[in-house]
Amino acid sequence: MHTMNAMHPLFLLTDFGTADPYVAQMKGVILTLAPQARIIDLSHDIRPFAISQAGFFLWAGYDYLPQGSVVVCVVDPGVGTDRRIVLLQCDGRYVLAPDNGLTALLLSRHKGSAPVRVFEIMHGNNACSATFHGRDIFAPLGARLINGALPETLGTRIKTETLVQPSWITARLEGNRLCTHVVHIDRFGNCLLNLMVSEWSEYLQRCAQIRVYPAGRKLHLVTTYGHLGSGELGLLAGSQGVFEICMREESVALELGVCPEDALSCECWKK
Amino acid sequence: MHTMNAMHPLFLLTDFGTADPYVAQMKGVILTLAPQARIIDLSHDIRPFAISQAGFFLWAGYDYLPQGSVVVCVVDPGVGTDRRIVLLQCDGRYVLAPDNGLTALLLSRHKGSAPVRVFEIMHGNNACSATFHGRDIFAPLGARLINGALPETLGTRIKTETLVQPSWITARLEGNRLCTHVVHIDRFGNCLLNLMVSEWSEYLQRCAQIRVYPAGRKLHLVTTYGHLGSGELGLLAGSQGVFEICMREESVALELGVCPEDALSCECWKK
Amino acid sequence: MHTMNAMHPLFLLTDFGTADPYVAQMKGVILTLAPQARIIDLSHDIRPFAISQAGFFLWAGYDYLPQGSVVVCVVDPGVGTDRRIVLLQCDGRYVLAPDNGLTALLLSRHKGSAPVRVFEIMHGNNACSATFHGRDIFAPLGARLINGALPETLGTRIKTETLVQPSWITARLEGNRLCTHVVHIDRFGNCLLNLMVSEWSEYLQRCAQIRVYPAGRKLHLVTTYGHLGSGELGLLAGSQGVFEICMREESVALELGVCPEDALSCECWKK
Repeated sequence: MHTMNAMHPLFLLTDFGTADPYVAQMKGVILTLAPQARIIDLSHDIRPFAISQAGFFLWAGYDYLPQGSVVVCVVDPGVGTDRRIVLLQCDGRYVLAPDNGLTALLLSRHKGSAPVRVFEIMHGNNACSATFHGRDIFAPLGARLINGALPETLGTRIKTETLVQPSWITARLEGNRLCTHVVHIDRFGNCLLNLMVSEWSEYLQRCAQIRVYPAGRKLHLVTTYGHLGSGELGLLAGSQGVFEICMREESVALELGVCPEDALSCECWKK
Repeated sequence: MHTMNAMHPLFLLTDFGTADPYVAQMKGVILTLAPQARIIDLSHDIRPFAISQAGFFLWAGYDYLPQGSVVVCVVDPGVGTDRRIVLLQCDGRYVLAPDNGLTALLLSRHKGSAPVRVFEIMHGNNACSATFHGRDIFAPLGARLINGALPETLGTRIKTETLVQPSWITARLEGNRLCTHVVHIDRFGNCLLNLMVSEWSEYLQRCAQIRVYPAGRKLHLVTTYGHLGSGELGLLAGSQGVFEICMREESVALELGVCPEDALSCECWKK
Repeated sequence: MHTMNAMHPLFLLTDFGTADPYVAQMKGVILTLAPQARIIDLSHDIRPFAISQAGFFLWAGYDYLPQGSVVVCVVDPGVGTDRRIVLLQCDGRYVLAPDNGLTALLLSRHKGSAPVRVFEIMHGNNACSATFHGRDIFAPLGARLINGALPETLGTRIKTETLVQPSWITARLEGNRLCTHVVHIDRFGNCLLNLMVSEWSEYLQRCAQIRVYPAGRKLHLVTTYGHLGSGELGLLAGSQGVFEICMREESVALELGVCPEDALSCECWKK
């Protein structure tokens, strides 16, 4: 039996920002139903409706969250439609999210050996607002999970394969052309790509030259920003587990005019 | 007797932002005096000195806060003057705020049946900074409340009617002209008005046409953003309990050039 | 023996912002190793690499933090180089920081009578990312401290004098010219200087006229913003313990084109 004192943390991942009343209302609801909950902000600064950015944050941070954590994800452009809400039990933690592809990167790359279990949540749509399921549906569900509710009591088991499968979770190689997706742009303007270091390191190291399009600029495969000359573009295996396009002390996102969720393709010539 | 483990949350509502050292100093003071306090950010992104925006956040979130919560509000353009500091006991929660109208919307619309009790705080102005009462006066008071101090020990009972009564808490109808106040602009540029859904829904549904001024643009009464055509302006009963002027995937605040605390009037023609 | 329930807070001070996954990953690591940790954001909005701004936040807030607090500071342009990581035991609290001058202002002005103890942290650099020591080295160290580890078990005692000594912690007087450093610009555009009120009040009050350069604008020594006329520049002893250059309801930082870490010099004429 776990005691109230040892309650697992509940992480919130939304695109609500912190300048609106939304996040605090979710926290109020959670603390009303689970007074001992330890709520931590995973992030609220996901670009509005940027599902792949949220999916990247979830995947990149997942292995660092304590066992037993509950992650409540509300990046939900389909709110009010009949999109499903799903609950994942994966590697000793729970994830609650709309079924819109947000969990796809995590599911395709998670590291545990135990099988993932997925549930479709049964929720009444009646007494709540059509536009704020974060407060009216997700927050109460998160509170019930943190209070120890079993997934079986919240929904019915479904097959993982039935979840929405977005294309952005995998980069595509078409001949010499590597088609990538910008999963995040960080504070320094570095463009993080859907190129997992564990999957693409070998291939990229075998390339004699790499250029990024539309600009056609040359990318230098480097291990640290300091190895770049002024104005040069680098491709770096970063701390988040993916390759990122970067410059030294400049924003490559501004230089190339790139936003999260954009497509970027690279031309790669073998040695 | 409530135990330390079950301590109620303390919510902070300020216009300090999070890029200055102010909020953390308030939290340090609270945790020094009440080591078990569970501090939650209601918001720190109130526009500087925007009392009505803070009052709206307080009202809109209030019913979602756990019973026993303490809300410490520091949006306080009168700091250093002789404005009063007041403590409200309302619907099972405490609110600490300067007497500048911040609590007026809550008091005029609260839902509990028990009477509200209001106290004027007795505080020594001596040993503290003239400009940072949030840290030097409000934080210690919040800590004392969360530690279980009774309101009677912090101040003297006063009549609710003596509190500052701002005009923005009620929209005014002058013939066909509905004079409203922008209480908040959200992340998407929607303009939230001081038109409570519970009070204005019937009237607005009886209107054949509504136009917003100065622009004179037509407002479509809709139940979801998706019902608006490109470039159209909508009037929507939103999740925060008020009507909001909105556009589909565009910022109506930018379109109309509106800021929080602005006045907007609507011309309403009956069917 | 302190109980888990009474665990001291752990404060985070970084230049990571909150729109990247970095801070949440640090919190995940801390909560994995110290499940009861009470993590508070000191600030994450330090300008990237602005060591003196972080040092100012640390000094200005320090006396308000509870006894026993652990402050983990990660503003670390030298990450990946052989810069040291140091642990300070100072006035009943712990500070963990890179040895880059971040702690120098605190050390030169701290108020306790007990001697400060400084340790160089012994850390393995092997299994961690070269670029994210915040998550891979600082977070685990913070967790061990909050769990009760003694400093002696984390590193070896070193002399305070061996720490990096930056010049910005002290303003310099060269004849009539007072050479100052902007340690912070607040939400309202006020420029906070490295002029401690306790050290410079007497000198400044003896001046007949003060002008700030490069602009050459006159500074009025005032005790409140309200004493300034429109367009006038003031010099004010503020709530953060330093003098700040300010205007009434305008941003003096915009007016003078000043950034954190800039140098500003003042010409001071004696009465």
